[in-house]
Amino acid sequence: MLIVGSVAIDSVETPFGKADNTLGGSATYASVAGSYFAEPGIVGVVGGDFEKKHIDLLRRRNIDLEGLQFDKSGKTFHWSGYYEGDMNQAHTRATHLNVFEKFNPRIPESYRKAPYIMLGNIHPALQLDVLSQVKGRHLVLCDTMNFWIELEPKLLEQVFRKVDIICINDGEARQFCGTDSLPKAASELLKLGPKRVIIKKGVNGVLLSGKRSFFALPAIPLTTVKDPTGAGDSFAGGAIGYLARSGRADEAAFRGAMVAGTVMASFCVEDFSLKRTSRLTRDRINQRAAELRRITRIPAFRV
Amino acid sequence: MLIVGSVAIDSVETPFGKADNTLGGSATYASVAGSYFAEPGIVGVVGGDFEKKHIDLLRRRNIDLEGLQFDKSGKTFHWSGYYEGDMNQAHTRATHLNVFEKFNPRIPESYRKAPYIMLGNIHPALQLDVLSQVKGRHLVLCDTMNFWIELEPKLLEQVFRKVDIICINDGEARQFCGTDSLPKAASELLKLGPKRVIIKKGVNGVLLSGKRSFFALPAIPLTTVKDPTGAGDSFAGGAIGYLARSGRADEAAFRGAMVAGTVMASFCVEDFSLKRTSRLTRDRINQRAAELRRITRIPAFRV
Repeated sequence: MLIVGSVAIDSVETPFGKADNTLGGSATYASVAGSYFAEPGIVGVVGGDFEKKHIDLLRRRNIDLEGLQFDKSGKTFHWSGYYEGDMNQAHTRATHLNVFEKFNPRIPESYRKAPYIMLGNIHPALQLDVLSQVKGRHLVLCDTMNFWIELEPKLLEQVFRKVDIICINDGEARQFCGTDSLPKAASELLKLGPKRVIIKKGVNGVLLSGKRSFFALPAIPLTTVKDPTGAGDSFAGGAIGYLARSGRADEAAFRGAMVAGTVMASFCVEDFSLKRTSRLTRDRINQRAAELRRITRIPAFRV
Repeated sequence: MLIVGSVAIDSVETPFGKADNTLGGSATYASVAGSYFAEPGIVGVVGGDFEKKHIDLLRRRNIDLEGLQFDKSGKTFHWSGYYEGDMNQAHTRATHLNVFEKFNPRIPESYRKAPYIMLGNIHPALQLDVLSQVKGRHLVLCDTMNFWIELEPKLLEQVFRKVDIICINDGEARQFCGTDSLPKAASELLKLGPKRVIIKKGVNGVLLSGKRSFFALPAIPLTTVKDPTGAGDSFAGGAIGYLARSGRADEAAFRGAMVAGTVMASFCVEDFSLKRTSRLTRDRINQRAAELRRITRIPAFRV
């Protein structure tokens, strides 16, 4: 499983505390979440300041780092921000792209035939570049963010036309499609050709739409939400990881992927950075999936 | 089943059309929705202008009108408003309370032992007054609105302390409890003593919380949403109706009630006023409940 995206150092403040200079980035969150289901290899870039403890954390999760570029000419991408209130919205204090500004994803030969690929949130031109480097049959999931929808809608549409799974959040779906209705947005996105459209709604769960299928899954109710950073990436990483593990691409596999993503996102937000998601077990993941099944089970219904 | 609330004449405009002087009101929507499950009797008030066709509609749904007061001294409560964008928020153009301003609910003797009671959105003092008039064992569901949370929070808390089911929407739960977290709001409300707290989230579904139970149900995805007016009341009416029909108050009955409410709300919004909900069949309701079950079914999950 190949995961391309940002590797970052984050400084985050929420009503429940703060964490300075912790490991972050879309490829990082996604690969750690996916590592419980499959064997991810990261393609990304870090700077000369990237600490050994971060490398150790990724290695402990059996994440292959052959594709991680070390650019000693500068520092690692750094994002600093805060959350308040219902914590649905990140507020940025500072973004220092550093070595990420010149990031040019080079897919190692050994990754080029990866059957499962996640294109994390990076410039859509780079996402297209990655797709031009890979070979053979594969299933591609892509994520993005509001920034690219505003700045590069045409390029982003090209990406959407080439992937199997579009995975975006509700605000982004509304923005890209110019409609307030999520069922309508999903229909619009499906017209671009993907097998499935996943719309992430944070605490309100997730919608999965196919040409002739639909699935809605609530989120797991949490009384402890310390830091929402990386929840969407953990969701996507868990989802593509589950698909890779199952080896299938039918509706049941996609629904299982939604459960995997929901469970991994729920662990992610319970603590800062990767504190929680890097220390899980498969048993713990299965337990929470079982809990999700219990709290959503519908009894027999007949008027 | 006893349903107390407003009976209104509404003029509504949405991006999909408009409807002038149509039947509305919390008791009306709730009793029509509940009529597919049990036999509702309404307690409310209308004015001298209330047309026979409205009476006929309610009679066709076998709704008992012994408790409907006819106050010839004035006109029926009239609400006029519009929706735009995602239609989650009603905008009021005019509210004429008319005869509803002096509404004094008198529960007919034949209703006083009703085992299922819905207190629709009216002044909390009147809700308390209704509770003082009823006798015997009963299950009470109460609804309210932001207006009373602002104006009469203490009285409303007294109501909440006396009922079995608190049924409010997400914004109201956050407002009443002073927290952004819905799981926390549900915990707070449960401390007031009800058996269950229902938090309605519109297109994002519904949460059902008990002291040792939790259930989350997504909404049915609709591409046609013509008029959201009355969706919450239809939900509540369907839910209490389902409980009345089942004769039980266990977790399975409450979950079935959430399905009934979700299904009735989904029909409600597909057309203006009671156009859709007044012309259903039990078969059609069962079909949509089956659809809801299909789109939420989780397959076996194991990492």
